[in-house]
Order: sequence, then C-alpha cells, then structure tokens
Amino acid sequence: MNQSYPSVLLEDAVNEFSKLPGIGKKTALRLVLHLLRQSEDQVTTFGNAVIHLKQEVHYCNTCHNISDSELCNICADDRRDHRLVCVVENVREVMAVENTGQYSGIYHVLGGLISPMDGIGPSDLEIESLVERVRKDEVDEIILALSATMEGDTTSFYLYRKLSGLDVKITTIARGIAVGDELEYADEVTLGRSIINRIIFKG
Amino acid sequence: MNQSYPSVLLEDAVNEFSKLPGIGKKTALRLVLHLLRQSEDQVTTFGNAVIHLKQEVHYCNTCHNISDSELCNICADDRRDHRLVCVVENVREVMAVENTGQYSGIYHVLGGLISPMDGIGPSDLEIESLVERVRKDEVDEIILALSATMEGDTTSFYLYRKLSGLDVKITTIARGIAVGDELEYADEVTLGRSIINRIIFKG
Repeated sequence: MNQSYPSVLLEDAVNEFSKLPGIGKKTALRLVLHLLRQSEDQVTTFGNAVIHLKQEVHYCNTCHNISDSELCNICADDRRDHRLVCVVENVREVMAVENTGQYSGIYHVLGGLISPMDGIGPSDLEIESLVERVRKDEVDEIILALSATMEGDTTSFYLYRKLSGLDVKITTIARGIAVGDELEYADEVTLGRSIINRIIFKG
Repeated sequence: MNQSYPSVLLEDAVNEFSKLPGIGKKTALRLVLHLLRQSEDQVTTFGNAVIHLKQEVHYCNTCHNISDSELCNICADDRRDHRLVCVVENVREVMAVENTGQYSGIYHVLGGLISPMDGIGPSDLEIESLVERVRKDEVDEIILALSATMEGDTTSFYLYRKLSGLDVKITTIARGIAVGDELEYADEVTLGRSIINRIIFKG
C-alpha cells in the first residue's frame, strides 16, 4: 500500500517504529498516534527512556549481563554460589532462569549463539572471556542452558570442546517433555531424547 | 510472571514500551533489546522522532488533520474540490480514503467518534467547527465516512441532525458486501442493507 502521510514528522516517527522487529507500517502508525494522544511529558519520558538506556547502560565485567554498574547485582551477591556458572544466550534467558527460583549460581551471558547463516562466529560472542573465567576463577561446574535449536546445539558443542580440557564439570539442561504437555503430541525427537535421558527413580 | 530486570534503565525502557497498545512486557523487552543492539545514533534518532513529533506537530486550521503547518497540503491544494467535504474519524481514515485514489474533495477530521462508554461526547470532537465550516465556507456536500460500528452510526446520526437545518447535501458512504467477498459468508445485517440500498443498473 502506498502511504501518503500528511506530515513529514509523522512519517519519520512511523518509519522509526516500523524498523522494530514485527512492527509493520500499520501497527507503527497506530502506536505513533497513540503516543500523540499522550501528554508532552509522557512522550518525552518515552523517547528519553530508550536514549538513556542506550547511552548509560553497562555490561557486567564478569558475566556480561546488562547492568547499571560495572558488576551486576547477581555477580555482586555473596549468597549466590560463585562456583556454579550457567551459560546463557542473552539477558532474556537470565531473567527466565531467575524466574524459576531454582537457581542459586551465577551466569555467563554469551551475547548470542553461533550462527553462520547470520554471520555470527565464536569470536563475536563472549566465549574467550568464559574460558578465562574458568581458568582464573574457582568454577566447579558450567551449566550450558542454550536453546534446543541448531544454533544452540552448535554453540553448546563448541563450548564443550573449548572447555573439555579444563578442570571443570560441564552439564547441559535437560531436554524432554515440557511439564503439562501430553505425550501423544510430543514430537519424536523430543520423546526419543526423553527416553534416552530417562531419570532413575529406583536403582 | 514476576520479572526481575538486571537494570533499572532497562526496566524503565521496557515499562515505557509496554504502555503502548497491544505491547506486553515480553514484546516490550524484545523491542528494547533490539534497539540496544543498534548504534547510539540510531537509538537517538528513534527517541527524538517521537519527541519532535509531539512537540512540533500542527493540526490543520481548516480540517484539523495532522499537518506540518497551519494549513495542510490537502486543504492548500487548489486543484481539489473545496465544495466537497468528507468527514472522517482520524488521520488514518484520511490516509485510507486518499489511498483509494477515488476522492478529489477535502476533509474534516473529527478526532474520534461519540462513545459514551469511553466518555467521549460531541463537545470532545471537532463538530462545532464542522458546523461553522458549512455555515461560512461554500460547501455543497458533506460525505459522512465513519466506521460501520455503533459509535460510527451514533456520530453519523448526531451530525445529520446538527447539519440537517443547513443548506448542504449530506451523504454517507455505501455499506454493503465488500469487494471480493462471497455472498454466502456475508452477515445478514450487511446483506440486508445491501439489498435495501441496491444500486439501479437500469431504470
């Protein structure tokens, strides 16, 4: 559809929104018109929130997670087990694991997964710094918590090879039937893996 | 889900995005992380586009559409028929009608529809200014092009009563079977209206 905007300012704002993933021109216009109905203060707060985030955000020196300071709250927390390091793709996975309430170790954020299709190689990720951490810090176990996709598996295998020579236990999160899922609808690969990696109840 | 963001700046940006219609916390986080991967210039351009729009946007003195100046491009265009005024809800409907390429008149943007449920009454809309236009300018015909919803119909009826005493032709856009739709799937109200408002092929 050939859009003719009645205002260049409006068109600029719509174009900026439509650069965001999953936002087309129609949705962008809807969002911009919504903002236009808010007060000037609210719109300024919105615009500045993203500008300030980009200008002032830090990445933790240790785990490379997004942080407000040089050391993130998780790495700075003495009550957490610093010998247990969970390797994740991004801040979203840190938040997902934190939300389980089941993990008391610390993290290492790779900043992505190895993906030759997208031109992302090992050197684009925080892999050398992970090897350094294992070498220098006292780490007992590395938990690989990456997506069960081709990119996730490739990255897990790469990390396994990189770390296997070092004195550290390497584990990966369990793949299997999701809690609440019915068995008959599970795909065969997942079901197969869940049988191979079955959990011992008794002897 | 109880989210614990690793950064206050990140949380602020996510909260701002999640105030937009149809954007939840998860989508907001995805959008913010996308912006964080862009350059500082790009993020500043994004943030300033909305701030500038809000601060500098004008509304046309005549038709009240969003504009870059006191008189919008459509109202300033002498080749258009200024005796024909199409009444629409918002700038989106102006763009929709313009995109048809079938309309050569000018517009009047109400800025919404009468909706007692949302607390929007006639005085919240550009209705008095429409009556003034019809009184002062030389307007031959008012086309009501409002949505086929309860709010649209209520507003059309209100406008009809307001304008019926004045020397102006009042029309409304045709309701009927959408082009490309199969008859058997049309709802009965639309089909009924399309029969009542049938178009004469031959006398």
